[in-house]
Amino acid sequence: MPHRAPGSPGHSRQQFLSGKPIKYYRPKGSNEIRHLIDEGFQAFNAGRLSEACQIFADKMLDSAADTTIGLTVAGAMTPAGLGGCVIEMMDRGLVDFIVSTGANLYHDLHYALNFTLHRGSPFLDDVELYEEGVIRIYDVLFPAAVLLETDAYIRDFLVRSGLNGPTSTSEFHYRLGQDLLDRHPGCEEYSVVARAALAGVPIYTSSPGDSSIGMNIAYHELMNDSRLMIDPNRDVNEVCAIVLAGTRNGCVILGGGSPKNFYLQAQPTLWEVYGIPKGGNDFFIQITTDQVVWGGLSGATPAEAVSWGKVNPGVLPDTVVAYCDSTIAFPLFCEYAIGSPNGKRARKELVLKRDQLVADLAREAKAAQNKKVEVKT
Amino acid sequence: MPHRAPGSPGHSRQQFLSGKPIKYYRPKGSNEIRHLIDEGFQAFNAGRLSEACQIFADKMLDSAADTTIGLTVAGAMTPAGLGGCVIEMMDRGLVDFIVSTGANLYHDLHYALNFTLHRGSPFLDDVELYEEGVIRIYDVLFPAAVLLETDAYIRDFLVRSGLNGPTSTSEFHYRLGQDLLDRHPGCEEYSVVARAALAGVPIYTSSPGDSSIGMNIAYHELMNDSRLMIDPNRDVNEVCAIVLAGTRNGCVILGGGSPKNFYLQAQPTLWEVYGIPKGGNDFFIQITTDQVVWGGLSGATPAEAVSWGKVNPGVLPDTVVAYCDSTIAFPLFCEYAIGSPNGKRARKELVLKRDQLVADLAREAKAAQNKKVEVKT
Amino acid sequence: MPHRAPGSPGHSRQQFLSGKPIKYYRPKGSNEIRHLIDEGFQAFNAGRLSEACQIFADKMLDSAADTTIGLTVAGAMTPAGLGGCVIEMMDRGLVDFIVSTGANLYHDLHYALNFTLHRGSPFLDDVELYEEGVIRIYDVLFPAAVLLETDAYIRDFLVRSGLNGPTSTSEFHYRLGQDLLDRHPGCEEYSVVARAALAGVPIYTSSPGDSSIGMNIAYHELMNDSRLMIDPNRDVNEVCAIVLAGTRNGCVILGGGSPKNFYLQAQPTLWEVYGIPKGGNDFFIQITTDQVVWGGLSGATPAEAVSWGKVNPGVLPDTVVAYCDSTIAFPLFCEYAIGSPNGKRARKELVLKRDQLVADLAREAKAAQNKKVEVKT
Amino acid sequence: MPHRAPGSPGHSRQQFLSGKPIKYYRPKGSNEIRHLIDEGFQAFNAGRLSEACQIFADKMLDSAADTTIGLTVAGAMTPAGLGGCVIEMMDRGLVDFIVSTGANLYHDLHYALNFTLHRGSPFLDDVELYEEGVIRIYDVLFPAAVLLETDAYIRDFLVRSGLNGPTSTSEFHYRLGQDLLDRHPGCEEYSVVARAALAGVPIYTSSPGDSSIGMNIAYHELMNDSRLMIDPNRDVNEVCAIVLAGTRNGCVILGGGSPKNFYLQAQPTLWEVYGIPKGGNDFFIQITTDQVVWGGLSGATPAEAVSWGKVNPGVLPDTVVAYCDSTIAFPLFCEYAIGSPNGKRARKELVLKRDQLVADLAREAKAAQNKKVEVKT
Repeated sequence: MPHRAPGSPGHSRQQFLSGKPIKYYRPKGSNEIRHLIDEGFQAFNAGRLSEACQIFADKMLDSAADTTIGLTVAGAMTPAGLGGCVIEMMDRGLVDFIVSTGANLYHDLHYALNFTLHRGSPFLDDVELYEEGVIRIYDVLFPAAVLLETDAYIRDFLVRSGLNGPTSTSEFHYRLGQDLLDRHPGCEEYSVVARAALAGVPIYTSSPGDSSIGMNIAYHELMNDSRLMIDPNRDVNEVCAIVLAGTRNGCVILGGGSPKNFYLQAQPTLWEVYGIPKGGNDFFIQITTDQVVWGGLSGATPAEAVSWGKVNPGVLPDTVVAYCDSTIAFPLFCEYAIGSPNGKRARKELVLKRDQLVADLAREAKAAQNKKVEVKT
Repeated sequence: MPHRAPGSPGHSRQQFLSGKPIKYYRPKGSNEIRHLIDEGFQAFNAGRLSEACQIFADKMLDSAADTTIGLTVAGAMTPAGLGGCVIEMMDRGLVDFIVSTGANLYHDLHYALNFTLHRGSPFLDDVELYEEGVIRIYDVLFPAAVLLETDAYIRDFLVRSGLNGPTSTSEFHYRLGQDLLDRHPGCEEYSVVARAALAGVPIYTSSPGDSSIGMNIAYHELMNDSRLMIDPNRDVNEVCAIVLAGTRNGCVILGGGSPKNFYLQAQPTLWEVYGIPKGGNDFFIQITTDQVVWGGLSGATPAEAVSWGKVNPGVLPDTVVAYCDSTIAFPLFCEYAIGSPNGKRARKELVLKRDQLVADLAREAKAAQNKKVEVKT
Repeated sequence: MPHRAPGSPGHSRQQFLSGKPIKYYRPKGSNEIRHLIDEGFQAFNAGRLSEACQIFADKMLDSAADTTIGLTVAGAMTPAGLGGCVIEMMDRGLVDFIVSTGANLYHDLHYALNFTLHRGSPFLDDVELYEEGVIRIYDVLFPAAVLLETDAYIRDFLVRSGLNGPTSTSEFHYRLGQDLLDRHPGCEEYSVVARAALAGVPIYTSSPGDSSIGMNIAYHELMNDSRLMIDPNRDVNEVCAIVLAGTRNGCVILGGGSPKNFYLQAQPTLWEVYGIPKGGNDFFIQITTDQVVWGGLSGATPAEAVSWGKVNPGVLPDTVVAYCDSTIAFPLFCEYAIGSPNGKRARKELVLKRDQLVADLAREAKAAQNKKVEVKT
Repeated sequence: MPHRAPGSPGHSRQQFLSGKPIKYYRPKGSNEIRHLIDEGFQAFNAGRLSEACQIFADKMLDSAADTTIGLTVAGAMTPAGLGGCVIEMMDRGLVDFIVSTGANLYHDLHYALNFTLHRGSPFLDDVELYEEGVIRIYDVLFPAAVLLETDAYIRDFLVRSGLNGPTSTSEFHYRLGQDLLDRHPGCEEYSVVARAALAGVPIYTSSPGDSSIGMNIAYHELMNDSRLMIDPNRDVNEVCAIVLAGTRNGCVILGGGSPKNFYLQAQPTLWEVYGIPKGGNDFFIQITTDQVVWGGLSGATPAEAVSWGKVNPGVLPDTVVAYCDSTIAFPLFCEYAIGSPNGKRARKELVLKRDQLVADLAREAKAAQNKKVEVKT
């Protein structure tokens, strides 16, 4: 009986890589998709996704609200081809800053450098893949050489950049994006890192050592005696300062993980550590498949965040969690937002304002400290 | 601090029921949605959903394949407004028979009888809801009177129909649908049960006592000395006979649960019980959020089904599970199918052919039995 | 490189079946396990499981409460070896009646008939399994002959029993259990169906056609012109009557699915259909991995059940859902209960009282109906 | 009708904090629990957990294997009271190094400083909690003052320690643990951080800015002009060096998240970045509730890790994922391991060997580089 079963032996590398190339899909604001979301997505998670779209498009993007919007990205979103959604959102000013796992940024570089990732299957024999030199991210496949050549680019960049000493991840990614724009003109159309540099959107990584980018910086220190290091303090203070400066604050959380926590902790950092009560987020949107009942932060609800001062206790109606794979829900969400009357905003270009905002934070924190001392005296 | 928190007290019944009425959304075959699914849904569950759409539209609906298609429905799909998708699919001949939980059919009657279900929230205080006489299905809300009046309709129908003695669920639902068409002309536009009667699509229920319909039939027996009873044997044999008669067989499984098992067991019934090897399903599509690792049938993969002879071992490439809430994935799936070149087929009108098909099954089963006896002798 | 990978080819049937036999583990009431649950299971689902154990052992089993306890079983619990827990609970009077999927009862017969199921792996190649005639339930493996021989036993029993005409599943399973006890003395130690017959515990199946038992009854009708059929009306009314007769009512729900709904609908059947307000369940324990956010009944919370009158609005503190695979949580739960001071109760032997209880239900329902008519007049 | 419903209003702070204090449960190696795991946990996730226990106790802990064992911890495990398991494992030499989220270490300090966390409920009104100054982690409750006083301790430690300039998280946590031991003698019985310092177990944090510890270090830089900063490069290289030095390598992964990736990336760092093929992990145990089908790293299987060279392609039989809340599965796992014949090993005290191991890594990496250059020339 002839068959092609999961795990059936005998695939060559070429066969593994015969799937359609993954491309960054760019949402254009489809009215038909908007109609489905408004009229057909009425209950359960379809209802939640519809609410999320409406809160984002109608309230968070409303120019009168002047919301500073953070996007957090966990899960292998760029390998799955979702970078185009992020590019479009940044270009239109709909996202002001990003907190991402390092892996999403590392794999984004493959697109920038014009390497190809392929659609595949999650049911392959990984020992065969290993022997054929094919790397698998769930159902995304590409040759191991893509890793090695991307690493080579990063290491060359590290040398070329002259970066030395402590730096924030936002600065690091900004410089990396500029290098990409410089050496691969036009790559802002298929690279989140490049587009972010162009659009002035700072990108933070909550776990800076935890990706091939971090691995290569560590190499640079060990092998080249470089003194470049990521200083998490700067990231913490920059994100705090951005949140403090927001007229209103809101987030779109894809997945959960440390990017979610890193974004949300800005509010407790303000009240708990710096003594500056900011009042919590005004809007909170999460697309996830994690569940509240497992007790972790990834699945924690906006309600739980209220007790921590992460979410404004007065705004629970403007918080929503849609339980869905982001690969399905996020493109729909972006189509809705982009097609809405508020589908374009002036870009905040926060990457250029970081120093000023941190200085503002320092000043306010010191004022709060002095006040506390006075009260005690 | 003013706020409207989950569980905050003080809602009146009118406030609970102030959400938009839920209506049966009817997919029209949007090209923009088809474009998103083909080009933007590339990996992870977006990739799986894209595969499911393509297998269904390009292969299962291909007239040369002549596939007999079963749709199984678990989870509260009609309360969530998905009945319109099912109506459209039946009307276009894209679904040949249905196995559903009784609850989906019972709640479908609310739409047929023109009662209103409302969009709501899953975060309400159920004690208040109880006190206000409001029923909640996750985030769908309606007055308890809707239950009572739907029950009254069913009990009147039971008396009126003259149904007595053992009957299959397909016969019961067919007669119910005809009654609806008769008394509520036009209701086939917003009732799955009515439309199924019109389109000749038999509807089975794997757990016939397990819904308000079953409860009212039980009442009819206890209180009216009726002898109407659902005979599961007829359902088992009819579904078996339909599957046996299929040139090719394929399914679309929403959720899982007993409808999934009831559909899938037809193949083992043929080989294991009746001695007629049919070879397993040729196509298998499931949209679910259950997981294989919990070990239950709802989450079991097409691969596991191969070992049981439920799925043809040669067709694993034509099987796919997309992990997603059906309220999101099924409307997208239907838009894709309806907009495809194969978006309309001749209806099989199986409801009219049941007796003939069961007779064929009996004949083949007896032939198989005789053959076995001969072999032994 | 030698390796034994998931899906690696070349297993013989004997190799597939080389895993340890699965046996029905019998909990004995371990004090060390009780200590862990009381002192070590403090938060998250460990906390929930601890609460469930304490509510069950301290409150539900308290003789003063006189709780009628229903156990519902979904998921392949007997193949996974959990029948011993159910046997022990029935023997000790800790469970008064059962609602189960048919599959659990069918696979229980393998143990009764002394066939062997083996521990295995979920990562095998199902096409190979199919070719070798090995059946897989997630990671449980056994030869296809086990199905065929169990079917043969059932068909012989159907002939031998003389059962004809409509019957409840409780009656059917009771007769089946008696047959097992009769022909396989001692099998009550390793068969739930046999032990239930001995202990007087009625077993219901919400989806009577939906298992190999149902398939064989359907065969009996088609091939032998038998008039035996399962009458779901009797099941609905018996469960209703049992619940109505309970001083207090409580449930232990494993998984969810149609058994959960079938148990829970007894209360709405009483108030909504029969006009007898019973007030809802007093205790509600569920062990599941399904999630509330998918909207289905399996994952629905006790709180949601309040709005339907399924759970007494005054008792939410005595309801708990522990999110865990039942194969882990249920043995722990049983150890706790059995080792508690309330680890043994007088058996209610409901199987013998069914007719009386249904007569009581009919009487009360008619009284309620007359009262309603009077009020209207 | 009196009731205490989820979200019912009117709780005072004292009522919220009336639950039993959460204490660090210390597993002692119960034979009864070992018996349950060996005999009662036979299939599904019980089977997986049993396999995990046996692989760990019989193979990983076998002195002949000389396995270097990393434990990764995500999810709020110390708030849920699981620190005692980790303390016991470190004390017995069963865990050689740890990668944890910062939150677990921060909340561990509450125990060290003798603050009380309480058992509670996940169904409270968070606006009320916020107003009463009570912090909620799912169902764990404590006064906000616990955060403020723990922060005060950290900030005092930062000043007192004299730490300045770049440091690894292992060094930071080691110094922190020594400070705790110094100022709170005996706290090693109820603090993971203190016990790790005593037992020589290095603790890494993959996301160093992402917790209240990171927030306070950032404060220290902004407000005190400190030059203390976490250098992720050191962490990456230390973990790499530890893995390189292992005769065999194995991990126990609780949850997933960035700690999982940080541990697993050590192998690709070796082959992909440093050119030193180490061959992948020899043992891989994960306890998680995340799922492979969501595509993220948290849910990725050992098989997928093979294609990346993270797991040795020859050892898939020695890899296992048990899907279960760690609050349930990890205490069971520890009881099993501790009660096994291999329940105690000589401690590796890696915290003292870090510099030497990193020097070894540098030497090997340079040798690999030179070899590569030679080959090219």
